[in-house]
Amino acid sequence: MASIAVIGGTGALGKGIARRLAKAGHAVTIGSRSAEKAQSVAEEMAKDVGELGFAANEDAAAGKDIVIVTVPYASQADTLALIRDKVGDAVIVDTTVPLVPPKVMRVQLPDAGCAALEAKALLGEDVRFVTAFHNVSAHLLDSDDPVDCDILVFSDDIEARKTIVDLCPGMGLRGLSGGSLNNSAAAEALTSILIYMNKTYKADGAGIRFTNLADAPAIP
Amino acid sequence: MASIAVIGGTGALGKGIARRLAKAGHAVTIGSRSAEKAQSVAEEMAKDVGELGFAANEDAAAGKDIVIVTVPYASQADTLALIRDKVGDAVIVDTTVPLVPPKVMRVQLPDAGCAALEAKALLGEDVRFVTAFHNVSAHLLDSDDPVDCDILVFSDDIEARKTIVDLCPGMGLRGLSGGSLNNSAAAEALTSILIYMNKTYKADGAGIRFTNLADAPAIP
Repeated sequence: MASIAVIGGTGALGKGIARRLAKAGHAVTIGSRSAEKAQSVAEEMAKDVGELGFAANEDAAAGKDIVIVTVPYASQADTLALIRDKVGDAVIVDTTVPLVPPKVMRVQLPDAGCAALEAKALLGEDVRFVTAFHNVSAHLLDSDDPVDCDILVFSDDIEARKTIVDLCPGMGLRGLSGGSLNNSAAAEALTSILIYMNKTYKADGAGIRFTNLADAPAIP
Repeated sequence: MASIAVIGGTGALGKGIARRLAKAGHAVTIGSRSAEKAQSVAEEMAKDVGELGFAANEDAAAGKDIVIVTVPYASQADTLALIRDKVGDAVIVDTTVPLVPPKVMRVQLPDAGCAALEAKALLGEDVRFVTAFHNVSAHLLDSDDPVDCDILVFSDDIEARKTIVDLCPGMGLRGLSGGSLNNSAAAEALTSILIYMNKTYKADGAGIRFTNLADAPAIP
């Protein structure tokens, strides 16, 4: 079991991820810009999943095995700058999708190619940096229901990538390596398609599954 | 039934698409840079699927309901320029994925955002332009086997997009609208992920399925 901070853990995606990690038995700390907000969410979640830690984002990020960042694109750079010097050897997992409101059904990748590459440039080469959880429905995660969606995991650090792929089954999810960090562009772009499909095909949390993989982890 | 040209129809993807369209009963013309090569492939395919037309690409593109372009990224611009003044009111379907050999497992979208937007800029506003078939395995298409992969269809022309979505079930495929042409970036990027998965997870034609869509066409 790992010690894991969820930065921005009071948002919809953060709560869903924290909930499933806590149920899997990990030591989860909810981070928020406001420690009081983090405490309130942690205490509410504790009724369902047992005790969670709470702290302001920069404190939550310190001394953990894994730090998962779940903030809107507009807050990504400031949040990463805030925790950069706190994370040490932790694996940082960035879930950021570069949506540009109000046109969130429209793929609008940044000039760098994807939010992952922007983040890596900001964090520097020494940070163990992974991206994942771009495509999964927050409200499905924040339940005990099965989630019919694969989790693509990207990193240039093969060991860190494997750590996060292996974290998924305990959360009731199938993690799949999507390759290098650069490939994060595919999952980031896909999120706008899924939002579009939610509307177009009356989906309640559209997802994706990869098919024909002979040698992939089983779907939990 | 429609009259359909497959430009670059002697390649792996072109043959797979032509085969399924011919079996569905459409009047298919194989196009190639060489009319002789087109004839040879059309005659070979005729043993399985009945008679097909053949012609040089620029001639094949004339007078059709639908013109499907299946050429490598390096040939996309030249091929579109060649057929631009021939297609008239046909719906053009571009299947181009901007792979940059030798690193085809690495997402490398062009500066314009995607190959679809590059093509649209070249063809102009008056052409009925759609992109599709980016993610489906060519060799699975070129068989009678079921294909476990959704076909994402993108266009700014809603009617043209619907025409191609509706073409899919006859081919044994589920077509799904992915939204505006700009969103083609997601499917183009995803192809590198699928090539990566073919290698990483020993897949023989990795594909994608969208999940939780209440109101989508049935999987054929």
